[in-house]
Amino acid sequence: MAKGNESWMETGRRELADYRLFKALETTSVGPHGKEGRFIVLDAPDWAVVVPALERGGRRYILSVSQYRHGAGVPMTEFPGGVVEPGEDPARAAARELLEETGYVAGRITHLGTCSPNPAFMSNSFHVFAAEDLSLVAEQSLDEHELVDVEEVPEDELYARVGSPPWGHALMATAAWYYRKWREGRR
Amino acid sequence: MAKGNESWMETGRRELADYRLFKALETTSVGPHGKEGRFIVLDAPDWAVVVPALERGGRRYILSVSQYRHGAGVPMTEFPGGVVEPGEDPARAAARELLEETGYVAGRITHLGTCSPNPAFMSNSFHVFAAEDLSLVAEQSLDEHELVDVEEVPEDELYARVGSPPWGHALMATAAWYYRKWREGRR
Repeated sequence: MAKGNESWMETGRRELADYRLFKALETTSVGPHGKEGRFIVLDAPDWAVVVPALERGGRRYILSVSQYRHGAGVPMTEFPGGVVEPGEDPARAAARELLEETGYVAGRITHLGTCSPNPAFMSNSFHVFAAEDLSLVAEQSLDEHELVDVEEVPEDELYARVGSPPWGHALMATAAWYYRKWREGRR
Repeated sequence: MAKGNESWMETGRRELADYRLFKALETTSVGPHGKEGRFIVLDAPDWAVVVPALERGGRRYILSVSQYRHGAGVPMTEFPGGVVEPGEDPARAAARELLEETGYVAGRITHLGTCSPNPAFMSNSFHVFAAEDLSLVAEQSLDEHELVDVEEVPEDELYARVGSPPWGHALMATAAWYYRKWREGRR
């Protein structure tokens, strides 16, 4: 009997539109049940976010960034991050976004996990890092339409906040999931 | 000075394409810096997932579903869930998806949280529920191209697994984030 954990065989793929952030494709695939279906796939570059941690006075703080999000139509508070450029290592992308959005460089970047932001229709991967040994070295360096506020949040308060507005970006809860598991594993 | 946590004013919105799962729109908006930008927005119905918990022999198990995901091109293990139908209450959608994908009905459905699956370019919300007092009442009832395997995972193993393949769907880590906070809050 055909099962859910068996793979389909792709039999076609055509571009429907190019939206800069991603291309919209239609694929045709034959499943383990022998039937063919058509599916919409958004082909996007990978994304990376970084959880930047500062130690000060024996307490641990996380750097957050706030910016208006045009899909949801509200400002959101998030971890720094963005698109991995073609050929760029995801850890370098994380360090670059950290520098551009906050002005900090990290002495240590640790990979916490990689997953699919939405495997139902997105082809790309989402990479999560921690950044430590932070030094403020520059001003923000943002794109024309980026307006980003930086804030330091105590780590214990972060856990309480993530998941509720303005921490309402699902992928930040994903990042916090990896980060918390990593922190617990080190104790 | 214009800040990241200020809102933009939308000045235009037009449909680019209708992909069934979502429509692609282009919006124009004026930011707090006084400049106008164009943004791609995917207008999608809300999504709901449910973390179904069974108690057996003093141990707690979570029901998972495995299915092939055409965006990532691999099978994924997830919590039951799907699209909230027009006019449908998200909690009812969660209960409906649980029944369709696993055959279980829940005596108690608890709302754990709501966030934006991707506020950068998606307009919709993602609702997370817990389901308890489960009774197996039916066979699976799936769409033509749905092939779904059901498995019971001990809760403590679930925490270790979520985030790594086949638990590589970012929104399942988001759901686990809410679920774990809720469980810890009850102790």
